[in-house]
Amino acid sequence: MARYVNVAIGQLGPVNREDSRAQVVARLMKLMREARQLGADLIVYPELALTTFFPRWYIEDEQQLDSWCEASMPGQDTLPLFELARELQIGFCLGYAELSDEGGVRRRYNTSILVDKNGDIVGKYHKVHLPGHREHEPWRAFQHLEKRYFTPGDRFSVYPAFGGLFGMAICNDRRWCETYRVMGLQGVEMVLIGYNTPVHNAPAPAHDDLSLFHNQLSMQAGAYQNGTWVVGVAKAGTEEGVDHIGGSCIIAPSGEVVASCVTKGDEVAIAHCDLDFCQIYKRTTFNFDLHRQPQAYGPITRLKGETLLADGSPRVKK
Amino acid sequence: MARYVNVAIGQLGPVNREDSRAQVVARLMKLMREARQLGADLIVYPELALTTFFPRWYIEDEQQLDSWCEASMPGQDTLPLFELARELQIGFCLGYAELSDEGGVRRRYNTSILVDKNGDIVGKYHKVHLPGHREHEPWRAFQHLEKRYFTPGDRFSVYPAFGGLFGMAICNDRRWCETYRVMGLQGVEMVLIGYNTPVHNAPAPAHDDLSLFHNQLSMQAGAYQNGTWVVGVAKAGTEEGVDHIGGSCIIAPSGEVVASCVTKGDEVAIAHCDLDFCQIYKRTTFNFDLHRQPQAYGPITRLKGETLLADGSPRVKK
Repeated sequence: MARYVNVAIGQLGPVNREDSRAQVVARLMKLMREARQLGADLIVYPELALTTFFPRWYIEDEQQLDSWCEASMPGQDTLPLFELARELQIGFCLGYAELSDEGGVRRRYNTSILVDKNGDIVGKYHKVHLPGHREHEPWRAFQHLEKRYFTPGDRFSVYPAFGGLFGMAICNDRRWCETYRVMGLQGVEMVLIGYNTPVHNAPAPAHDDLSLFHNQLSMQAGAYQNGTWVVGVAKAGTEEGVDHIGGSCIIAPSGEVVASCVTKGDEVAIAHCDLDFCQIYKRTTFNFDLHRQPQAYGPITRLKGETLLADGSPRVKK
Repeated sequence: MARYVNVAIGQLGPVNREDSRAQVVARLMKLMREARQLGADLIVYPELALTTFFPRWYIEDEQQLDSWCEASMPGQDTLPLFELARELQIGFCLGYAELSDEGGVRRRYNTSILVDKNGDIVGKYHKVHLPGHREHEPWRAFQHLEKRYFTPGDRFSVYPAFGGLFGMAICNDRRWCETYRVMGLQGVEMVLIGYNTPVHNAPAPAHDDLSLFHNQLSMQAGAYQNGTWVVGVAKAGTEEGVDHIGGSCIIAPSGEVVASCVTKGDEVAIAHCDLDFCQIYKRTTFNFDLHRQPQAYGPITRLKGETLLADGSPRVKK
């Protein structure tokens, strides 16, 4: 038995402030054609792929903020990507800033969608773990205002697509073991993750040189511990003066890296992934029904932070 | 600020069926003296350190089973280890099979204890994630009957000791992200993990050659994602005809390996660990209070296995 999905990384180099959506979509379409020529069933693009990573700036003007967002998907500028997908019969996963109107309440989300080979959206995900901060912090070399600009999502879902079960996560989500586990508990077979990760982390510059290691470590552990494929895709290189890591890669349920990008620009890499390979792990070491012990996991959902002492009493933080 | 703990790995080579407790304790004491000469505050021994790994055999005779267990700790054979610890002013963490009598109910646990520099037991842990199987499976080259012989523990606790917050886990626990997270939520600064890991995993021999990689990957991810030191200590080498991985190592909160053993025999390795180094991670990327999103983690404690569909309905397993 084998259920193969050929998945392509659609890594992007920098997107500058003045680049139009049409320009970026043209780059995405070029990567899509290349991926299809290589036999891909699906191409995965980065987080906030359509624009520069605007949370690096403190922006008070709501109209300007909204200008970085998509009010409809597909919209006028993105429709050609959907049409090309249908023409080529290739699916895609795309990250973008979403402007939603939910019963008159306007919200912005850091969103990704899964689109099937017919150009139909079959899954939409709102980023759960928004990193950064809410207020302007001028001491930083650049801002990271995702907590200010976006509303967090409240769930990780899994979607039947491409003959398997697919999940999505975005950037900082990949550092949190809960991300993979919640999808693992839904039987996920491939997790698609776009990211924009500056090399420099202002609150903890001491580990800037470990950025690529931490990126890969988190995705490898998530893959292995849930018996799932993981696809990590960067917007890489120097964007508006800020260096971003690359390191896009495809990781097998064994935790092994089976494909990776080697540049910090627009680049396609591809892997031939057997979704049935997940079962070697899901039915043995990580057979959840046999081996998980939820009675010991209570604090994971009961607590947000470090507030519990060994005797169960609350801890006063330093 | 720095709070250093010098921690030593006390890796063991094989312990054979006929080796007496006194013989094994003599080896542990030799390692303890060596560790103390190297300046260690604490030495960590493997899982089930006092005996051979007896769950590899199907044993019906309860008396024989009990003979692998300690009914008291310290007992006659282990008392010299406690006395030496007090004399040398060094702490230790020791794994052993425990025979307990709880109000007339006899139970066996796969246990580890944390002992301070005065030879006093300051923490006791019962292994939560018991691997293997319950019934005799003659098709296996060797058995792994932990689920038959032991009662699982129901919690991960953290103990104030050696100027910091210490936790314990045992062997298969280290593959489960929940293990580290539950202790991370209690502020753990160093997790002590003993293990006996056969190279060959009968249900999934396809990944036998990845055993060392998976061992290290799981501990590195647990360390990084919770900003904690992790100490992994093997009983290594060929024990009663079964090959066991070594790979004992000490991992920093950065996920970096800072010390490791290089043999499969009795061996000491040591690291100078600053517990305050945890804060670089606990206060930034993994500041749980700021960044965790428990509202999205429900399935982790609500479900045991893969029983949830994307729409929340139960999934019928294949």
